[in-house]
Amino acid sequence: MEEFYSESVMSRVVRIIDSFDRGARALRLTDLANRAGIPLPTTHRLVAEMLSLGLLERGPNRTIKLGNRLWEIALKGSGLLSLREAAQPHLEWLLKSLRVHVNLSVLDNYSVLFLERLQYGEPVPSGRTSERWAIHDSSSGLVMLAFAPPEYQEFILSRPLARRSAETIVDPVQLRKLLPGIRRSRIAYVPGAGLEGYTGLATPILGAGGDVIASVSVIYPRGTEQPAAATEALLIAAHRIHMALVNASNE
Amino acid sequence: MEEFYSESVMSRVVRIIDSFDRGARALRLTDLANRAGIPLPTTHRLVAEMLSLGLLERGPNRTIKLGNRLWEIALKGSGLLSLREAAQPHLEWLLKSLRVHVNLSVLDNYSVLFLERLQYGEPVPSGRTSERWAIHDSSSGLVMLAFAPPEYQEFILSRPLARRSAETIVDPVQLRKLLPGIRRSRIAYVPGAGLEGYTGLATPILGAGGDVIASVSVIYPRGTEQPAAATEALLIAAHRIHMALVNASNE
Repeated sequence: MEEFYSESVMSRVVRIIDSFDRGARALRLTDLANRAGIPLPTTHRLVAEMLSLGLLERGPNRTIKLGNRLWEIALKGSGLLSLREAAQPHLEWLLKSLRVHVNLSVLDNYSVLFLERLQYGEPVPSGRTSERWAIHDSSSGLVMLAFAPPEYQEFILSRPLARRSAETIVDPVQLRKLLPGIRRSRIAYVPGAGLEGYTGLATPILGAGGDVIASVSVIYPRGTEQPAAATEALLIAAHRIHMALVNASNE
Repeated sequence: MEEFYSESVMSRVVRIIDSFDRGARALRLTDLANRAGIPLPTTHRLVAEMLSLGLLERGPNRTIKLGNRLWEIALKGSGLLSLREAAQPHLEWLLKSLRVHVNLSVLDNYSVLFLERLQYGEPVPSGRTSERWAIHDSSSGLVMLAFAPPEYQEFILSRPLARRSAETIVDPVQLRKLLPGIRRSRIAYVPGAGLEGYTGLATPILGAGGDVIASVSVIYPRGTEQPAAATEALLIAAHRIHMALVNASNE
């Protein structure tokens, strides 16, 4: 009867799924129980049912991993999938035209969630698909913040702002001053905000309804930036993605 | 006490998530209950908790949709993410070299699960990311079947084989005869198997351990096929993806 009076089955299942990540794609039951903070017998019981439903699968050496079925059901009805699909040809075009890394991201629950990364050349070990960043840490976050409602901006800027890299701006006054310029140019150009040695440029994507729903950005290794060319290409790509979303919504 | 004696919370949650798809990204509570086959009061209770955990979110006009948080936790620890990331630059290269649609897929639970689709030109309205197909319906499925254990092949070929398009081969004897040739050439070239008006060519991808773990394929509009060029490019791309997986596993 334990689950009836303490934490719900559902929140425990979420914690089990959330225990896996890039560095831990296959876990033994005891490690999984430790990471999830759930007693081993309960973990054992939940894992057995999750295996039977395909949410988990057995991995090598008595490990457990996330099931393909989980990926499938989480993705097939997700609005993020339609956004990614509308954007994909235009992200390709940016990659080909500018020869840089390209990102697609959304604001989600007070942080930036990276949806897609197209790699050009050497991987940038950060800001990859499914990573979540603070909003002030990247051009992607700042461009979406600039177009967010004032109350949201104030809420974000009133919280403690951590420093991701040496150049991350963590002074709310300085950040607040950036926003009108970003709104006017529709471009956030913030060298080093996210990752030392790299510069991001980002522009907003308007959804079918005309609101900013996402951001597309490009990443240059420091010293190779071509802000004029990047700005023009980003504005074109964002417009094309917006049109693709409008067309998709009229279908 | 209902949930204790009938269906579990977990399998109902899976059915709720599974009720959303491309054609139904936002649902009202009653539609969701109907699709999931769960009584309305129970659906209401489960949805409330799923909203609080971020598995669901509120959409426009009193609808409910899948939460970004669900996408995030399902993806960040998934082995499918590492496969997609290892493959992505090489899928780009295929797109650029051959100027055709490119697919990445895996065998999962007796069907083909499409992981990624890079579009070239007009979208092909089928075989998109997160779609699941029968194995005999596509070059992707047939190439993975050709490299599967004999018992698995027999199991698949002994089941009823539905016809997806006019040219889908549904005769198990005829399908069985194709497999040795596919294994020798490492290419499945099956015009019209999946979709009228299109031809797929697929090759297997070996994982770090040397087993076939996935397939990469290209899709030509019928009459524009360039099988020699496609074969060479596919074999090169599959080799490069394999090497990327080997390198990733040694990190």
